[in-house]
Amino acid sequence: MIEILKNKMTPESILTAGFGVEREGLRVTQQGRLALTPHPPIFGDKLKNPYITTDFSESQIELVTPVFYSVDETYDFLEALTDIVIGEIGENNELFWPYSMPCNIPDDKQIPIASYQGEEGKKARAYREKLMVKYGGKRQLISGIHYNFSFSEDFLTTLWQELGTQESYKEFKDRIYLKVLRNFLRYRWLIIYLMGCTPGLHNSYIEECLQCMGDCGNETYLSPGGTSARNGSCSGYKNEIDLYPDYSSIKDYIRSINEFVERGDISEAKELYAQIRLKPKDYRNVLDSLEKEGIQYLEIRTIDLNVFDKCGIAKIDLEFMNIFMLFLLLEGEEFFDTWQQEALINEVAVAEHGLEPDLELLDHRHWTLKTAWADDILEKVAEVNEYLGLNQEQCIKEMQNRVRQPETTYAHRLKLLMQENGCLDANLEMAKAYKKQSDADHYRLKGFESWEMSTQILIKEALTRGIKVVPMDAADNIVRLEKNGHREYVKQATKTSVDNYITPLLMENKVVTKKILQENGLPVPDGEEYFSFQEAKQKLAKYVGKKVVIKPKSTNFGLGICIFDQGGTLAELFEGARIAFEHDDTILIEDYIPGLEYRFLTMGDEVVAVLHRRPANVIGDGVSTIQQLIDEKNKHPYRGDGHTSPLKKIELDDQSQMFLKKQGLSNQSVPPKGEMIFLRGNSNISTGGDSIDFTEKMHPYFSEIALKAAKAFDAKFCGIDIILADYRNPDSNYGIIELNFNPMIVMHAYPYEGQERRLGYNILKTIGLVD
Amino acid sequence: MIEILKNKMTPESILTAGFGVEREGLRVTQQGRLALTPHPPIFGDKLKNPYITTDFSESQIELVTPVFYSVDETYDFLEALTDIVIGEIGENNELFWPYSMPCNIPDDKQIPIASYQGEEGKKARAYREKLMVKYGGKRQLISGIHYNFSFSEDFLTTLWQELGTQESYKEFKDRIYLKVLRNFLRYRWLIIYLMGCTPGLHNSYIEECLQCMGDCGNETYLSPGGTSARNGSCSGYKNEIDLYPDYSSIKDYIRSINEFVERGDISEAKELYAQIRLKPKDYRNVLDSLEKEGIQYLEIRTIDLNVFDKCGIAKIDLEFMNIFMLFLLLEGEEFFDTWQQEALINEVAVAEHGLEPDLELLDHRHWTLKTAWADDILEKVAEVNEYLGLNQEQCIKEMQNRVRQPETTYAHRLKLLMQENGCLDANLEMAKAYKKQSDADHYRLKGFESWEMSTQILIKEALTRGIKVVPMDAADNIVRLEKNGHREYVKQATKTSVDNYITPLLMENKVVTKKILQENGLPVPDGEEYFSFQEAKQKLAKYVGKKVVIKPKSTNFGLGICIFDQGGTLAELFEGARIAFEHDDTILIEDYIPGLEYRFLTMGDEVVAVLHRRPANVIGDGVSTIQQLIDEKNKHPYRGDGHTSPLKKIELDDQSQMFLKKQGLSNQSVPPKGEMIFLRGNSNISTGGDSIDFTEKMHPYFSEIALKAAKAFDAKFCGIDIILADYRNPDSNYGIIELNFNPMIVMHAYPYEGQERRLGYNILKTIGLVD
Repeated sequence: MIEILKNKMTPESILTAGFGVEREGLRVTQQGRLALTPHPPIFGDKLKNPYITTDFSESQIELVTPVFYSVDETYDFLEALTDIVIGEIGENNELFWPYSMPCNIPDDKQIPIASYQGEEGKKARAYREKLMVKYGGKRQLISGIHYNFSFSEDFLTTLWQELGTQESYKEFKDRIYLKVLRNFLRYRWLIIYLMGCTPGLHNSYIEECLQCMGDCGNETYLSPGGTSARNGSCSGYKNEIDLYPDYSSIKDYIRSINEFVERGDISEAKELYAQIRLKPKDYRNVLDSLEKEGIQYLEIRTIDLNVFDKCGIAKIDLEFMNIFMLFLLLEGEEFFDTWQQEALINEVAVAEHGLEPDLELLDHRHWTLKTAWADDILEKVAEVNEYLGLNQEQCIKEMQNRVRQPETTYAHRLKLLMQENGCLDANLEMAKAYKKQSDADHYRLKGFESWEMSTQILIKEALTRGIKVVPMDAADNIVRLEKNGHREYVKQATKTSVDNYITPLLMENKVVTKKILQENGLPVPDGEEYFSFQEAKQKLAKYVGKKVVIKPKSTNFGLGICIFDQGGTLAELFEGARIAFEHDDTILIEDYIPGLEYRFLTMGDEVVAVLHRRPANVIGDGVSTIQQLIDEKNKHPYRGDGHTSPLKKIELDDQSQMFLKKQGLSNQSVPPKGEMIFLRGNSNISTGGDSIDFTEKMHPYFSEIALKAAKAFDAKFCGIDIILADYRNPDSNYGIIELNFNPMIVMHAYPYEGQERRLGYNILKTIGLVD
Repeated sequence: MIEILKNKMTPESILTAGFGVEREGLRVTQQGRLALTPHPPIFGDKLKNPYITTDFSESQIELVTPVFYSVDETYDFLEALTDIVIGEIGENNELFWPYSMPCNIPDDKQIPIASYQGEEGKKARAYREKLMVKYGGKRQLISGIHYNFSFSEDFLTTLWQELGTQESYKEFKDRIYLKVLRNFLRYRWLIIYLMGCTPGLHNSYIEECLQCMGDCGNETYLSPGGTSARNGSCSGYKNEIDLYPDYSSIKDYIRSINEFVERGDISEAKELYAQIRLKPKDYRNVLDSLEKEGIQYLEIRTIDLNVFDKCGIAKIDLEFMNIFMLFLLLEGEEFFDTWQQEALINEVAVAEHGLEPDLELLDHRHWTLKTAWADDILEKVAEVNEYLGLNQEQCIKEMQNRVRQPETTYAHRLKLLMQENGCLDANLEMAKAYKKQSDADHYRLKGFESWEMSTQILIKEALTRGIKVVPMDAADNIVRLEKNGHREYVKQATKTSVDNYITPLLMENKVVTKKILQENGLPVPDGEEYFSFQEAKQKLAKYVGKKVVIKPKSTNFGLGICIFDQGGTLAELFEGARIAFEHDDTILIEDYIPGLEYRFLTMGDEVVAVLHRRPANVIGDGVSTIQQLIDEKNKHPYRGDGHTSPLKKIELDDQSQMFLKKQGLSNQSVPPKGEMIFLRGNSNISTGGDSIDFTEKMHPYFSEIALKAAKAFDAKFCGIDIILADYRNPDSNYGIIELNFNPMIVMHAYPYEGQERRLGYNILKTIGLVD
């Protein structure tokens, strides 16, 4: 089999598999008590949000990634969801408990069971109430990682075709997955050792379980040599009796499960708490679907939350799981009557004593030193890696290290922290650090960093609200959003189906734009159109000394625009016309309207944000030089390259130096305290300008004007630039100078001054995906 | 006054005035009988079509241009309307009678009075029935030119401000227009001489009128020295008694009209058949509106249809009228009691005897030789032209020539033709020639030649159906269409408000397009995406010898696409990838689907056209060389530059020569009879390809597929390219290779082979402007 892989597949395609992660976690107060508040309503209907829902308890959030075909994508998406959850529950001053074992929890009666909407919701609730009675509430609060794995179609079909067996493809697939499952059961103790991370308990946990550990004060109980209380025989979440389904074939499996149910050991298939599960296509009819459609993927439930990673699982562990699954497929197997019992003995042994150096395990009925066996297995994994050229040395070495140096394991490291600070503080410290990390990056969405920031805003909002996000093309920033069968394609955050195709085409033509605004009684600056530099040159004389603006007929983003607010000389006007003609075949020369320029952002029937852009500037403190003031201002967390950050760092380029020189200043001048020094004439964010929110300050009269302008074009998403003298006074002189059909939203969402605007919500509302 | 114009205005702005032309004309049979068919229904409701309506009779079409501010635009629009009318009535085998006096007309009882829709229509009909009784039907069929003239606002305000009078602007304007009107009345005889073109009558006209002329056989009666029977005392359309309104002021005018009505001379103001009329803003309340809002423009009704021009008036005559109106304003005036009677005497004298060399007229109560006086007036016009630098020498010289050489007048030239061929044949010959001219140019719309042909198609259809056309920006091909308060902006014929903004954005991305098509169960060629030449180069080896297509991810019009239908060498694939990367940052390499490519054009819920494009080719005749066959094929009337013509002339460029060489041929080869020789590989129309209509031939299965593809994108206007093996067989293998959101429509509208598709109608239907 390994020969086929080597000869017929590339290393990348061998490692390409389907990965999905589910991560549970409790909402807790700043003091580590279970949060008794309801699941945040922004996450919507729990049964419909495919990403963020609850598990057993109302206080237990469950994050679900879709299936991705690379570890990186899976991890990134999980991080995005984690950031969203941390941010949203943070609004309520709650923290995301990073530990698999519960926080400071109340009595069963006070543990809120998750409540749901609708008919299906009633069933979900009833099932949980039954579990509460049977297993108790505290155990139900244990959280973990569910790791879903499937081989790629390419991988499976290549093997099936090359092996030339008599089986159907479905039979072949079932056989493959069953083998991997069995081998996982055999070797699961190794994963518990490598990734186990539940060395102790808070003293609010079940009394009997505390008894299995040592009291080390600080409300904390620890197991001296244990790696994973969650997988241990005492504290974990297990069936009441040990059950050994028959994994020989799908038919055998189904038969054995049915026997368990008939015997009353479990009430239905999903109550079997196996370390690994066979997953069907139709999760409502597990056994039927497994029989008819075969095994779709495997779900591994062994892995504890890794408190040392914000996402609850480290990327390197995901990388190791990838090659480990491959190893499980390639590794031969020996059958004997008690292999499942033996595997369970090893599981419990490692969970409860994994850190003890001399621990022995049963390897095919013989006691073997755990470390030697682990080394042996990892060596085989390394061989697979080398033979197939998979380049996974790093994660394998990391695991070998954990075997050889038990003090590097998560379990050991966490035990030390909990010894020192107690269960609550050790984990709360971690939770707070993760919150800080999430907050600092709240304008970035992990896994979507290559997308424009505006699209990140939209996707983040969609994920939060459980609107399904289907990336269509990252390079073009095209995404599909889906909810309740309603699908919307969106490009660059605001190019959507709710706008007419003709609207942007009218707006991108400044002459047509002016005509339509005028016909609608909206004031625009008077102006004339010129079709060649030759023509313009002949007529420029009449503009000498007049306050005018020279600009290209189309194009956006203020490119090629020259403002002569003090009037220009003939030579200056020549230059202005020349520059404008660099951007278009036709230019406009328009009256200059005095005042400040404000950007009104409309979505649907609302002005959702108003902003003024101030040219790059610093404010003197009477002591620092301009250069020092710039350096200081550039430390603002929003300032960066302007593409992956909301604002741009101020650069003192030639143009700025000239601008300072004209004012009799240099970068070494020390401006008086409180004086604002402008560093350029133009106010673009992309040249270090400040964005200042005016949404509430702007007189509603002008917002009405902006809305009227947008409506004249039937535009649902529109940026309207209005120059006006006094934003508080509706009698101020004003003029509309430009309409933008693809308005920037980042500067409103993350302004330099003023309130942040949650525009992702407004976009979703405008396209009808939220109410 | 002339000083102000010289000092304060440019020659262009002096000549800038508002011009509108109304042109009447009868529909006739090929034999010159009055057509008794109804007004063509395609022209819609007569009361609502602003361009094409009827006058008195159902058979009398009236063309109305909007007001333009240049002679050229006015003339071009008139020509567009004329071409439309000639084309549409030609469908019914009728001709557009070019002569002011009627064709072969029946008795009054058989002359169809125009019928109208609705309440307003009833009144219009009733008014015409009254006229029929009062003036008889035959006289009502006389057609002519109504020339509407207004000075520009710039012109009037400059004069008003510079003259610094005490009058209001409205009073000033009224005074200006009244002076021009009075001078026009005085000098109208000159216009009748210069532009008169009704020297005779058909013998079906009113018996008494025929008696005023000489019978010259051929059913024709001619006046030996007359220029304009239409303006004469006998055959023309005049009030029953001569009426002389008081033109001293608006108040006096209104008073005098009211007196006429009270006396019963006329039933209402509009029944005054003056040679020139004062025009109000509100045509429903003429006198009230004149008093309140002042004179808006002047309507001159003196000018006969010029049979020597397809449009009924020559452009040079329009140019002369422009400067003549200016002259009338600048020329002083002398008042005496009988100045209006004198003007009427001169009018009739010139109309009935204008061609007689010794004709004398009354010039301020003194008989003066007409030629000397005319020379004198034209000399004054020439002086105005020279002093103001207006550059109108050509038209003035032409008029001087008509005065000095009466044989060059329209009246004389037409008299000769009618003498020779009779009234009917002389005019029918003209009508047929104009029809031929219109037909040859039917894919061009006069006045809109600078617009894309597709927009010309749309505008032509809109004008035909009386949908108001407002050009917004010719350079961008943006037009506004209006009907019954419903406005639609259209860019490039098919970019409209009925398409969503996201639709074209999805379609222009080939990767996203493929994803969506696949999700909708539509077959697309398998393929892979490459993001750099480097990356592609590394993987090209696997495509060697395989049938693939290499193409850029976006872009349209087949640019940068290489087809390897026989498989390519590595070098060829390299070159293909290189070319594709010239057009985009990302390229696709897809399976080649064998078969022919068809373009399906959908609009709304319909496939409105299907087309196959065949690469440039010639068919051998066994005698001619390939070069000769190309030259012959290029004579097809549709072949030209491909921008202003539906098809492109075939050019035997290097690529084609190479292509021939590969087949062992050169341009001097003589292909056998019936053999098709391809001159290139690609089938683009822009490189001389043939367009072949398959709308009816295509199996409906594939049209359904095309529609399904368009609907997957919610596209209202869409071009779908499908490759399929056999267009008759729905079981043929096929694949969708591209969707176009701005599909070419010209190739369907004017194909090389097969039926022309009236797509302007389909566009208007899709955007809801026709049913």
